[in-house]
Amino acid sequence: MSLGLAEAPVSEKAPNFIGAVKALRALTENDLAAVNEQILSRMDSPVSMIPDVAGHLINSGGKRIRPMMTLASARLFGYDGDNHVKLAAAVELIHGATLLHDDVVDQSALRRGAETANIIWGNKESVLVGDYIFSRAFELMVAAQNLRVLEVLSRTAGIIAEGEVLQLATQKNIETDFDLYLSVVEAKTAALFAAATRSGAIISGCSEKEENSMNSYGRNFGIAYQLIDDALDYAGFESDLGKTVGDDFREGKMTLPVVYAIARAKPDEKSFWRRVIADGVQNNGDFEQARYFMERDDAVVDTISCAKSYAERAISDVSAAPDNDYANAMIELVEQSVTRGF
Amino acid sequence: MSLGLAEAPVSEKAPNFIGAVKALRALTENDLAAVNEQILSRMDSPVSMIPDVAGHLINSGGKRIRPMMTLASARLFGYDGDNHVKLAAAVELIHGATLLHDDVVDQSALRRGAETANIIWGNKESVLVGDYIFSRAFELMVAAQNLRVLEVLSRTAGIIAEGEVLQLATQKNIETDFDLYLSVVEAKTAALFAAATRSGAIISGCSEKEENSMNSYGRNFGIAYQLIDDALDYAGFESDLGKTVGDDFREGKMTLPVVYAIARAKPDEKSFWRRVIADGVQNNGDFEQARYFMERDDAVVDTISCAKSYAERAISDVSAAPDNDYANAMIELVEQSVTRGF
Repeated sequence: MSLGLAEAPVSEKAPNFIGAVKALRALTENDLAAVNEQILSRMDSPVSMIPDVAGHLINSGGKRIRPMMTLASARLFGYDGDNHVKLAAAVELIHGATLLHDDVVDQSALRRGAETANIIWGNKESVLVGDYIFSRAFELMVAAQNLRVLEVLSRTAGIIAEGEVLQLATQKNIETDFDLYLSVVEAKTAALFAAATRSGAIISGCSEKEENSMNSYGRNFGIAYQLIDDALDYAGFESDLGKTVGDDFREGKMTLPVVYAIARAKPDEKSFWRRVIADGVQNNGDFEQARYFMERDDAVVDTISCAKSYAERAISDVSAAPDNDYANAMIELVEQSVTRGF
Repeated sequence: MSLGLAEAPVSEKAPNFIGAVKALRALTENDLAAVNEQILSRMDSPVSMIPDVAGHLINSGGKRIRPMMTLASARLFGYDGDNHVKLAAAVELIHGATLLHDDVVDQSALRRGAETANIIWGNKESVLVGDYIFSRAFELMVAAQNLRVLEVLSRTAGIIAEGEVLQLATQKNIETDFDLYLSVVEAKTAALFAAATRSGAIISGCSEKEENSMNSYGRNFGIAYQLIDDALDYAGFESDLGKTVGDDFREGKMTLPVVYAIARAKPDEKSFWRRVIADGVQNNGDFEQARYFMERDDAVVDTISCAKSYAERAISDVSAAPDNDYANAMIELVEQSVTRGF
């Protein structure tokens, strides 16, 4: 069964997503080590549950894409201070706090191939440690002593939370259309990517035009990244993803493949989607049936096409920035992210 | 049955807590109206669940003690700008976000006589709207454009979350002693009172000595306030409290009355406390039995005495500030708070 990802390069030799992540990591290696140090020291607490839960989250194989975006955006414009490290750590901690709360809300059991904190320690602990991580993220931002960055990042935290609430409201709602779904993606994913790149740019002292282009790059990359995630929940392989394929389906999440599939369903197929998504009544074979409809109607293929169009916009955003290694690595990352299989 | 609160004044004519709250409210009336406006406008969102949940929380009869502390501390030193309004609103929103998450963690059903948001809308909604409120609080702080205040408030948010995690860890732990319990109270309650008064002082441009005295006032008042809350959970009357008497007991919370009662229990009574608190096995009559031990061993009376000693310290902290209506109202509030019956 092909859902449009069969051609994704898997060889370590061909250019691929992991290669692009590694290239950016090599460029930001020293800064990233400083980010990790900041995160570890901010998670230190005599209340042992805090470093335990935070350590589990932070060491569980995240690719650190968001903090690398902040670091690269600052270096791209020649920044040579160290406040970008604090901002990058803050961005990663906001992301981490969001994941802890997300897993409680979604009752997820697996993330990146490991048991989630809510399963190991409990929901209460995940809520409170999430709050702690979130607070520490704000402390780090404040430590960077830049009020404009603080405005951007605090506003972004509100947008993310608003997006999460909106997603909860759209869940199981089969009337959700492309525009509504895109506003969920913009808020819950793209806003933090955009804030990550924009705050790196601001701290570097670049021009307003350059700052805006970095904001736009982050936003477009974030949308592309999320749409591929959505596609992989239907088209990926569990061993590659490190999470359970079909999670979104089981939770009744209205992601883009489902939005497309429902819009293109024949009249007598609408009852299938109403039952499995709106009513949440799912039987053996329903996920396979959903994948069949998606393949027949190009729902996943078109989700990937949509992701690719946002990726193209992100790449053209970088043309406003200086042409250097950071810019090239940021372009390569976007290019490879839309052909990834995990 | 008398647990030490029988002499609390209940007449509206005698000086009492409500009278002291009203006096401070009259002094800060215009500022407080501006705080309410700030809160309402920051909770505005096209995602209707956000104003719904936030409105329920904010309109459910909170006394607004914390924001009044910020307003009064700024005015006390002659501040005539309007940034104290933003900070006061931020303080109240941090408190509100904490309450939403607390009620999820404690599975509380009632707060101030009304059903809690987690019961009406659900736990997921309360977690996410709490995150939203928290983010908006940070935006408000940033809008006040004072980096020192931002440092204090962001650090405080971390301390509160740390205190909540610590409280979760001490829950059902009958080894919890006075010092450990006091560190929970300092973190989860007193830190926000202290930050409320300190940030009002900072924004006023008062001296460092005055700022420290306001920090100390808030901390001591916060401890006194929490200890009276703890006492009332065993000694109060449900109709006055607007919450269920015995909530702390049922949740196995190690509050000061329980710490004292366990320390003073006869050897053959320890098993009672182990069963009801550590093992959480409670039968009909256990709450009354606990109250009997507490009365016999002065556990509630001594909790109130302890609260009164912190109240005295708070009152003496105000002597470092100018002698005006704000100072007098702040003193009166503390005095009356330790004789309140709700």
